[in-house]
Amino acid sequence: MNPVTVGVLGAGRIGKLHTENILRMADVNLKMVCDPYLDEVWAGNLNLKTTYQPERIFSDSEIEAVLICSPSPLHAEQIIEAANTGKHVFCEKPIALDPDRIVEALEAVEKKGVKLQVGFNRRFDMNFVRLKEAVDSGKIGRLHLIRITSRDPSPPPINYVKESGGIFLDMTIHDFDMVRYLSGSEVEEVYATGSVLVDSDIGKAGDVDTAIIMMRLKNGALVVIDNSRQAVYGYDQRAEVFGSKGSMLALNKTSSETVLTTKEGVVSDQPLHFFLERYGESYRAEIEEFIRAIRKDSEPTVGGKDGLASILIGQAAKESLREGRPIQLET
Amino acid sequence: MNPVTVGVLGAGRIGKLHTENILRMADVNLKMVCDPYLDEVWAGNLNLKTTYQPERIFSDSEIEAVLICSPSPLHAEQIIEAANTGKHVFCEKPIALDPDRIVEALEAVEKKGVKLQVGFNRRFDMNFVRLKEAVDSGKIGRLHLIRITSRDPSPPPINYVKESGGIFLDMTIHDFDMVRYLSGSEVEEVYATGSVLVDSDIGKAGDVDTAIIMMRLKNGALVVIDNSRQAVYGYDQRAEVFGSKGSMLALNKTSSETVLTTKEGVVSDQPLHFFLERYGESYRAEIEEFIRAIRKDSEPTVGGKDGLASILIGQAAKESLREGRPIQLET
Amino acid sequence: MNPVTVGVLGAGRIGKLHTENILRMADVNLKMVCDPYLDEVWAGNLNLKTTYQPERIFSDSEIEAVLICSPSPLHAEQIIEAANTGKHVFCEKPIALDPDRIVEALEAVEKKGVKLQVGFNRRFDMNFVRLKEAVDSGKIGRLHLIRITSRDPSPPPINYVKESGGIFLDMTIHDFDMVRYLSGSEVEEVYATGSVLVDSDIGKAGDVDTAIIMMRLKNGALVVIDNSRQAVYGYDQRAEVFGSKGSMLALNKTSSETVLTTKEGVVSDQPLHFFLERYGESYRAEIEEFIRAIRKDSEPTVGGKDGLASILIGQAAKESLREGRPIQLET
Amino acid sequence: MNPVTVGVLGAGRIGKLHTENILRMADVNLKMVCDPYLDEVWAGNLNLKTTYQPERIFSDSEIEAVLICSPSPLHAEQIIEAANTGKHVFCEKPIALDPDRIVEALEAVEKKGVKLQVGFNRRFDMNFVRLKEAVDSGKIGRLHLIRITSRDPSPPPINYVKESGGIFLDMTIHDFDMVRYLSGSEVEEVYATGSVLVDSDIGKAGDVDTAIIMMRLKNGALVVIDNSRQAVYGYDQRAEVFGSKGSMLALNKTSSETVLTTKEGVVSDQPLHFFLERYGESYRAEIEEFIRAIRKDSEPTVGGKDGLASILIGQAAKESLREGRPIQLET
Repeated sequence: MNPVTVGVLGAGRIGKLHTENILRMADVNLKMVCDPYLDEVWAGNLNLKTTYQPERIFSDSEIEAVLICSPSPLHAEQIIEAANTGKHVFCEKPIALDPDRIVEALEAVEKKGVKLQVGFNRRFDMNFVRLKEAVDSGKIGRLHLIRITSRDPSPPPINYVKESGGIFLDMTIHDFDMVRYLSGSEVEEVYATGSVLVDSDIGKAGDVDTAIIMMRLKNGALVVIDNSRQAVYGYDQRAEVFGSKGSMLALNKTSSETVLTTKEGVVSDQPLHFFLERYGESYRAEIEEFIRAIRKDSEPTVGGKDGLASILIGQAAKESLREGRPIQLET
Repeated sequence: MNPVTVGVLGAGRIGKLHTENILRMADVNLKMVCDPYLDEVWAGNLNLKTTYQPERIFSDSEIEAVLICSPSPLHAEQIIEAANTGKHVFCEKPIALDPDRIVEALEAVEKKGVKLQVGFNRRFDMNFVRLKEAVDSGKIGRLHLIRITSRDPSPPPINYVKESGGIFLDMTIHDFDMVRYLSGSEVEEVYATGSVLVDSDIGKAGDVDTAIIMMRLKNGALVVIDNSRQAVYGYDQRAEVFGSKGSMLALNKTSSETVLTTKEGVVSDQPLHFFLERYGESYRAEIEEFIRAIRKDSEPTVGGKDGLASILIGQAAKESLREGRPIQLET
Repeated sequence: MNPVTVGVLGAGRIGKLHTENILRMADVNLKMVCDPYLDEVWAGNLNLKTTYQPERIFSDSEIEAVLICSPSPLHAEQIIEAANTGKHVFCEKPIALDPDRIVEALEAVEKKGVKLQVGFNRRFDMNFVRLKEAVDSGKIGRLHLIRITSRDPSPPPINYVKESGGIFLDMTIHDFDMVRYLSGSEVEEVYATGSVLVDSDIGKAGDVDTAIIMMRLKNGALVVIDNSRQAVYGYDQRAEVFGSKGSMLALNKTSSETVLTTKEGVVSDQPLHFFLERYGESYRAEIEEFIRAIRKDSEPTVGGKDGLASILIGQAAKESLREGRPIQLET
Repeated sequence: MNPVTVGVLGAGRIGKLHTENILRMADVNLKMVCDPYLDEVWAGNLNLKTTYQPERIFSDSEIEAVLICSPSPLHAEQIIEAANTGKHVFCEKPIALDPDRIVEALEAVEKKGVKLQVGFNRRFDMNFVRLKEAVDSGKIGRLHLIRITSRDPSPPPINYVKESGGIFLDMTIHDFDMVRYLSGSEVEEVYATGSVLVDSDIGKAGDVDTAIIMMRLKNGALVVIDNSRQAVYGYDQRAEVFGSKGSMLALNKTSSETVLTTKEGVVSDQPLHFFLERYGESYRAEIEEFIRAIRKDSEPTVGGKDGLASILIGQAAKESLREGRPIQLET
């Protein structure tokens, strides 16, 4: 079994994570990591071969696949470049904020026949896999409601907020994908509402920090998502699917199963702090899926159209918030 | 301490419950129970003095207070009659479906200076009292979000559905009151959506059986309520208040704290079946509050304006569903 | 249906509780309450007919049944007196600390053909009823292990400790009865160990305050009980039955189902404080069982031999602790 | 930072696990794996350098440390051989069943000045680390009770049972070590009892399959351990430390945090199936500790005397079971 040779584009927080995960995979050969602002100490400790120039990766014919972990505005052009040089692509979300730009990238991918997987890692989290199984197996019967709570422990830097496309395209986008994943249905209508309750600077930047998004799906089910940029107790990632035969909840993960009982109360652990802790296993699993798809020449289960669909929902949510009315999605 | 002498109007399911509760109160003297279709066996077992004619109660000068548990269309006129005969009133919700009719009843109450308590029993449930305390004490900081899940175990008879005013005025009305209670704030805007997923006859009757209602409060907090007419596993009554310092959840009550672990899984009890089981203690507590208010000549904590406010929100929710847009509430 | 006429002997904490419970029962007529140190205010509020002289109760031919809630040293003689005057007996545990004295009382009961129920209220608690059902129904298969945790919130006054017969006869006796109830088996061997860790005065009084008791049952199952006189967080009452097909746990009851999540942790309610709160329902249920047994002329499910058996186990545990070896129980 | 060069002796189930873990450690160089019945496919996939002859490892002067994962009867002689060739030793438990043989091994270790860590992996499990911290930090006050439930999902092959030294030396030994770890105290007295309830062949082999072990510690605390060779629902690994200020429980780990609620009940996940799943992280952590101790020239936190102490307790438990009386441990 020959290893799959890969290159990594972008070695910030998430690029480092993916790099370390593929270093541990027996069937992957990490050839090169590219980052113009490379963390040399980190790369040195791991004995990585590095470059500042993406071209070094695109022009390397041994490299079969790239992991695009660069800043979001570069994603689409790097997908196109990778496709044009015949490399399979794993790309962090979002492909682009502009749906037209996404379509452009997907066309390049299709034309060149390379594979594209989008980094919706939560689809690989065991809790959400169980919810999906409960829906698909009929355990909860016909799907009636999906409820998702998705709250970050603290807001990102204000400059990040300004360039992120807003809470719906930056944060809720994961939840939009989760709804499509769990329901197996497309979204028909979105209504979004939000407030600035956490940090007034977020409001000045034209965004909200607390939001509720309601959706009606094509299969008739109703959905509600609530988001906050700041749950001071940690990363709150819960979901429920409810149907004609029952309900399945996914609760938060904790660092231990201990319970302290004293005069002050019965105290158990808070949710794991943030996405690196909470979703560590899902990041490993999604890359394994990507490598498996390359090996078996199969389609990744989460691909370009998923990346597009979530952005379309996000744009509709933005429009809904702006206009104060529900928005229909085109089919 | 002289007992308070009361009469009960209406001895259906809820009237029987209140009757049995006051029979156990040392400081209440139940003088008479009125129901045109009285369950004679039940009344006989309890040695009750009964009548088919409400006038017997209204004209009895010894009776200081009445519990109105008759069918909803009679509530307003019985409140007015009670006020006019100088009797304090505990009235089951709703006072009326028509806000103008409620105003009429409240005016009679005010004019005659009697007390009026509306049967929002959930305000007296320990779980929700704790949520309220968490908000008021500052434990969760500034309130950002309220989430309520309120699902019945099975739909009512279709004839009941037809006369109930619809899910928002019949079922969600308790949740609307809960939002006002927990937040201490009024509702600014309502957006409601719903589907017919449980029973197509409900749809034919012009109602929905599954609904999500979003609200924006005057204090800036956002609210989401989800309702279903049928949670096959029991009466699902959960809520969460989330704020700048944390979150408090109220989970379901169960009939035991046992956990069975076998090859098939780890199984604990379902939610208590329906409102008589789930809210039994709150029904006792609300009547105690009513009697206490009479004794101490204080205002009941849940009064006429609460009965009116919840109906106004419910009517706005109906309008929102009909028109497919958020509705502003007048102040 | 004529009510059963009863008298209450002893109106301390537990006597008051039983009195208030029977006042609420439609089919019981409380004729008289006797206590030489009667709480007059309490009795006055409830309009009770009272006496300081037990003879007034024993000699009253209308009284069909007595509730013996007097100090333990009086139990046996009052049982005998009640039997001799033809009255049914509900007696708080223990009947006596001396097995011979118990036998004497039971002989009087049998000779006179009255009913005797002993106050092992925990048998009527829903959690333990569920454990019992899990054993009897075969849900957990053949019984292998029973584990009971039984810890009081704080030690009783030292004078009470001195006269109580020690922790095994005062506190563990409930657990010994629970073992017999859950298993449906008798005890073959007891080994007890204990320490003085809570209060050195308890040690000076010749008792221990922390104990572990191990038992082997006739059906082969093994049992362990742990006791403490002081769980600062409340009344800790848990149990587990484990068998060839699985396990059932009974966890503590709490005053609400709320969970507060903040930076400090995830905090739920402590166990209910003590037996009046925790076992309130079981006290009502045991008296209902007693009245039902009288009405239906059936045997109470927990009778004199249960009262005797638990004392014999307790005496064996004392002997084991004293001699530092396991003690066989005679059959 | 030069990597530590290690060799692995024995590549059965646990040897494979350790091998795979060290392959992922950046600072360890795995030079050779020895097993006379080597799984060649496994070794081939991982590109391991292998041998059938332990001498190849002992005589390799580059190898600084060995992981002894061979059958238990070989442990002591391999420790001695490793010490004599100047290699640090990580040895799976038990060092030997015979305390004299352990002492011999420990003397060799001490004489040669190599490090020895014994494979009590549970000390590195996050749940038990938290219990230890709760005891050490004073959160639960003075320690009064330790309760450990430790049940395997199914019994080992009967031939394994025959050579294992019995349940106390094979299975409970981990719990004995846990008691010493959590309490920081030595054991003063042991009383053990057991039954054959799972499999009569275990009885014929002279062992029990269900056991309760009580201990008194030198610090006055009491301990109870319950063991079963067969919990059909999975690997049941719970513990509680209880003291003057409260209690901390460690509950089972599960594969997800989902809860399915249907008409049949509220179902969550069973405990993780067995030790490879349950204690995966602790196996990684203990080897990291071993490598760290070599690098920093510090003592491993769990060493030879811990290996000896647990065997002495286990031998006392066997004696207690045989003689039906509590056994004092020599100091």
